[in-house]
Amino acid sequence: MKARVTVTLKTGVLDPQGKAIEGALKSLGIAGVDSVRQGKVFDIELAGHDAVAAEAALKTACEKLLANTVIENYRVEIGA
Amino acid sequence: MKARVTVTLKTGVLDPQGKAIEGALKSLGIAGVDSVRQGKVFDIELAGHDAVAAEAALKTACEKLLANTVIENYRVEIGA
Repeated sequence: MKARVTVTLKTGVLDPQGKAIEGALKSLGIAGVDSVRQGKVFDIELAGHDAVAAEAALKTACEKLLANTVIENYRVEIGA
Repeated sequence: MKARVTVTLKTGVLDPQGKAIEGALKSLGIAGVDSVRQGKVFDIELAGHDAVAAEAALKTACEKLLANTVIENYRVEIGA
């Protein structure tokens, strides 16, 4: 079973990496970019076919390791 | 207009970061994780409402800056 976990910075948390990318895009002449925020994505291959158990396991994984929940949000999609 | 660009490693390209996360998840006792691959996600805010032009601009941005097309795939979603 495949799953995708997306971890993004919470609104209001400064993102200097995103700001740098925004500046680079502007200097490359890509028009119309107002803001960029960078996050992380984890493509996870899981054993078994129990989507509910998999989602629970991945939420635990996010809380413990994949996301810093003080400054980041996470989203778990099963079967993506 | 909002857009999301997801950049992931191509199949067959080694991902030591993903391997490390996989090991860490296993040692944390998260069951059933077969493999992990890490990618990047860019949440981009664009001026204007022309989705076709925005997608073209973001594809150019991926080719020039956001993705290393030798080893990475990218996906552009508009209005995500």
